[in-house]
Amino acid sequence: MSVATVDVERLTELGQQLRVDAVRASGAAGSGHPTSSMSAADLMAVLLAGHLRYDFSASQNPANDHLIFSKGHASPLLYAMYVAAGAISDEELLRYRTSGSRLEGHPTPQLPWVDVATGSLGQGLPIGVGLALAGRDLDRRDYRVWVLCGDSELAEGSMWEAFEHAGDQQLANLIAIVDVNRLGQRGPTRHGWDTGAYARRIGAFGWHTVEIDGHDVDQIERAYSEAERSDLPTAILARTRKGKGVAAVEDAEGAHGKPLPDTESAIEELGGRRSIRVEVTRPQADDRLPKLTTRSLELPVYLAGEQVATRTAFGEAITALGRVRSDIVVLDGEVGDSTRSQFFQREHPERFFQFYIAEQQMIAAAVAMQVRGWVPYAATFSAFLSRAYDFVRMAAVSGADLCLIGSHAGVSIGQDGPSQMGLEDLAMFRALWRSIVLYPCDANQTAHLTAAMADHAGIRYLRTTRGDTPVLYGGEETFPIGGSKVLRSSPDDQVTIVGAGITVHEALAAADRLADDGVAARVIDLYSVKPVDVVTLHQAAAETGRIVTVEDHWPQGGLGDAVLDAFTQSTAFPRVAKLGILALPGSATPEEQLQHAAIDADAIVEAALGLVES
Amino acid sequence: MSVATVDVERLTELGQQLRVDAVRASGAAGSGHPTSSMSAADLMAVLLAGHLRYDFSASQNPANDHLIFSKGHASPLLYAMYVAAGAISDEELLRYRTSGSRLEGHPTPQLPWVDVATGSLGQGLPIGVGLALAGRDLDRRDYRVWVLCGDSELAEGSMWEAFEHAGDQQLANLIAIVDVNRLGQRGPTRHGWDTGAYARRIGAFGWHTVEIDGHDVDQIERAYSEAERSDLPTAILARTRKGKGVAAVEDAEGAHGKPLPDTESAIEELGGRRSIRVEVTRPQADDRLPKLTTRSLELPVYLAGEQVATRTAFGEAITALGRVRSDIVVLDGEVGDSTRSQFFQREHPERFFQFYIAEQQMIAAAVAMQVRGWVPYAATFSAFLSRAYDFVRMAAVSGADLCLIGSHAGVSIGQDGPSQMGLEDLAMFRALWRSIVLYPCDANQTAHLTAAMADHAGIRYLRTTRGDTPVLYGGEETFPIGGSKVLRSSPDDQVTIVGAGITVHEALAAADRLADDGVAARVIDLYSVKPVDVVTLHQAAAETGRIVTVEDHWPQGGLGDAVLDAFTQSTAFPRVAKLGILALPGSATPEEQLQHAAIDADAIVEAALGLVES
Repeated sequence: MSVATVDVERLTELGQQLRVDAVRASGAAGSGHPTSSMSAADLMAVLLAGHLRYDFSASQNPANDHLIFSKGHASPLLYAMYVAAGAISDEELLRYRTSGSRLEGHPTPQLPWVDVATGSLGQGLPIGVGLALAGRDLDRRDYRVWVLCGDSELAEGSMWEAFEHAGDQQLANLIAIVDVNRLGQRGPTRHGWDTGAYARRIGAFGWHTVEIDGHDVDQIERAYSEAERSDLPTAILARTRKGKGVAAVEDAEGAHGKPLPDTESAIEELGGRRSIRVEVTRPQADDRLPKLTTRSLELPVYLAGEQVATRTAFGEAITALGRVRSDIVVLDGEVGDSTRSQFFQREHPERFFQFYIAEQQMIAAAVAMQVRGWVPYAATFSAFLSRAYDFVRMAAVSGADLCLIGSHAGVSIGQDGPSQMGLEDLAMFRALWRSIVLYPCDANQTAHLTAAMADHAGIRYLRTTRGDTPVLYGGEETFPIGGSKVLRSSPDDQVTIVGAGITVHEALAAADRLADDGVAARVIDLYSVKPVDVVTLHQAAAETGRIVTVEDHWPQGGLGDAVLDAFTQSTAFPRVAKLGILALPGSATPEEQLQHAAIDADAIVEAALGLVES
Repeated sequence: MSVATVDVERLTELGQQLRVDAVRASGAAGSGHPTSSMSAADLMAVLLAGHLRYDFSASQNPANDHLIFSKGHASPLLYAMYVAAGAISDEELLRYRTSGSRLEGHPTPQLPWVDVATGSLGQGLPIGVGLALAGRDLDRRDYRVWVLCGDSELAEGSMWEAFEHAGDQQLANLIAIVDVNRLGQRGPTRHGWDTGAYARRIGAFGWHTVEIDGHDVDQIERAYSEAERSDLPTAILARTRKGKGVAAVEDAEGAHGKPLPDTESAIEELGGRRSIRVEVTRPQADDRLPKLTTRSLELPVYLAGEQVATRTAFGEAITALGRVRSDIVVLDGEVGDSTRSQFFQREHPERFFQFYIAEQQMIAAAVAMQVRGWVPYAATFSAFLSRAYDFVRMAAVSGADLCLIGSHAGVSIGQDGPSQMGLEDLAMFRALWRSIVLYPCDANQTAHLTAAMADHAGIRYLRTTRGDTPVLYGGEETFPIGGSKVLRSSPDDQVTIVGAGITVHEALAAADRLADDGVAARVIDLYSVKPVDVVTLHQAAAETGRIVTVEDHWPQGGLGDAVLDAFTQSTAFPRVAKLGILALPGSATPEEQLQHAAIDADAIVEAALGLVES
């Protein structure tokens, strides 16, 4: 099957139009990546004109295909496609990269047709895998997921997590279009135009592969048709020339990421401006109703004095939430027995996704699923979320709504040692746009926060503890995000102890001992580390004048810093002693770990007395 | 070639000894991973007895082979090997995982024979790639690098960054031994015992692959010999049985990461304790002299008023440092033209390593090179260091001495938008054990700090700026780590402005405007964000009572938090206003970005007046 001659001409013209518009946009902006756009222009022309099924007037149509520019720096090409599709005006195109324009340097979901922010390479394909999974296994729709990849980004391990997962899952609805223009930012890529090198690797992961000349619209057309018919995910490896069509930059080093040297002559060389308008194929109208069930939530309730790990309460609560909300999905990185997400798997296997030990792919899939309206909870050890930090960072840029759970936080895990201890996670998650950071100390609190997370926006992080801890709260208590709980309080309080999670229990023990010494201590459970309960902290500072913060985390960027931050702009600053991990832990029992790290009751007592007595 | 019968018996017995000792250690500890050790016991027995060249009495012998347990949870097996080699006593083995023992739950360089901490899966092989590179291209020695990998960790993308790099570089001195025991933590792996699935994938990346029965010492012996002769890196894919030798746990689910149910009967089933002592082959004695050159350093000097980007000063300074120190090596993630590490490449190509866009492999290789005494500087965009955060975290656990450079920090990069902006890096790097965080504002300061970094321990992070900034300091100034510079000061100061990097210039402009308004403002250049200059900050607080902090970073975990932290335990807390990025940036000019983020001179003036006037 091949394209008729008239189509070849029209598609070739459309490719040139996309090039011209990419060059114009970058020229107007004075920055951008026109040459990386020009290499893929023919690939995108054929896609837009004949294969993409997308209603640009209804980006929320659930039957729409998805197009992800994994090589996000080729944004001028994407925006040129929007012009050709009639989605944006030429005037808007020329405001590319200017202040207030939604046509940013790299695509973001400020634009209704962009699912996710890209620009950190190696993320678009794993997200595409998640969308393909969502399409097949959750939405059960026949949309296709098209991902335009660069050749340079195939060096990122995350791409191979994606190839492995998609191949294993035989995601026939996923098509990766690799723009093999052989030039990276600073020079040639590892494999140049050797598309066979890529095909061998990707093929070994169970994909169908096609090698083509990426400037031959007939070959492109046939490759897309072949991909659409394939039972496997397809990678189209397209040999292209960076800067194609303009001799001054074509296949030239040193022309990455800058406007062409002479925009006007480049336009002329490309045959001048065109104004082809593409009627993009719309998908079938969708009249299926949303599938949300609504029943009243019955969270697990734990009895005061019971010993229950917060990770266990998370597992039981998310399972209960899954019973009444059919939009909840859970993602695992091969540690579901530890994080307790396995409880959810047992009851709701159809909404549980196993990614094996591939945290980047797990987070990418969670981002993808929330694009389609699902509410993802992704859980692994808090330490191993650091493996996917760039994905979490980009999820925040995407404005994604994600629930992330990090178990086995802190030194209190005990014998396994520092490689398994999340000691940076509070800092990681606080330093994100619009994030929420929660760190419960008991099972009922965990259950409530697990459910509450579902209804907030942005990145929500829940930190859980490995070991059993006593239940402190009744099942009827509520725990608003941004709140705290004052667990000990009297008019005579001389010092306030602020903890969260495991250290709340140490704080209570310390307060008891201080009381024996005649020192009344207030205890605050700061379960919401971000946003933080400024009012309660200010009141404690005003009334006690002294605060000890204690956290199972490095002393930087976590709970202690969150408390200090509450006093910026304040006129009444308390004296603060901050307890956190000061030395690298080794193996020891949980109790020994807390003691060695000087975050146990003894250390709190000492710090409190130090403040009170000096 | 095959092993003589007597050897088969002895090696089989040694394998059983390793199993027994792993079981005993875990049993004594009451935790650990005996079953993951038992699967690989025969593989390690043959290695120790016949192939590893290692002087256990001289772990620093540069001719030693390197053995990395990428599956670090199999630490009982590693420690059992140490017993067999006579490196540790049986008494010490039985203190496994107890407080104060250097036999931690996962191996760390507390032990002289351990190069790097493992336990976060997927890191050992990329580090092995770095050691193999160091051996061939830097040390120019013929040591081999043996990496014991798990099958589960082959799901990590970082493993494929390693396979790609080693295959491309044809690192014949690298041998990956994959213990394909088919069971992960929570159940079966993706590919089970299908070693062919792994062989096809790894082979496609240019490795020599061998599939064997991992309990047949004759097959193991032949595989090692074949690997030693190969011109390519070799992956040995060994089918094994988790918990091999004890029926209660052999190939059983639910037996991961816990002692055997009955240690005594397991020892009996394994044939009881043995006390085989292996004479490990020692490498040839080494009498080559260290190759350090010593000349006096001539750093580049920039003239006051010149406009020079700090990233450029880094590139020129590291190149100058490379002239006088032959132990400096530079690692790039395909952005050397942007970070300016390319300057070093031009002059010292033999000590420059290109990893393409594979930040995890880049950091892993830096960790490996410092194992061998090299002083690595690894540079990429600050945003993209988040891609390798787990590797940096584990490098800190390893006690590694690394210099990391993050360019293009903050919103001030301008039009490229948030995907390219490092806005979390200060928080990331502050929250690490023993880290140093530096953020220079001018070219001379950058040059000095670039050189000073080389001589400190731990993770040293240097944050550089994309755009040109004026030179403020003379070439003769010094910038001790932990210090700061007071750029404006008078007895009448009513407020102190603390900035670093790009915001120092805004702070100075703000101070000028405040002076016009009759408000004297002190300005502190806090180039050392960790450790922080507590004395100067306390003095400023005491003398001015008010501090405005301003940073091109999210307000959490960075410079503002570092300043607040300086006042813990202090009795005189200043009033503090903290300026940082509050909303998600888009595309705009650098000046617009600073204005939108409210971290420019106008915003500083407003905040300072707010403190002074209220």
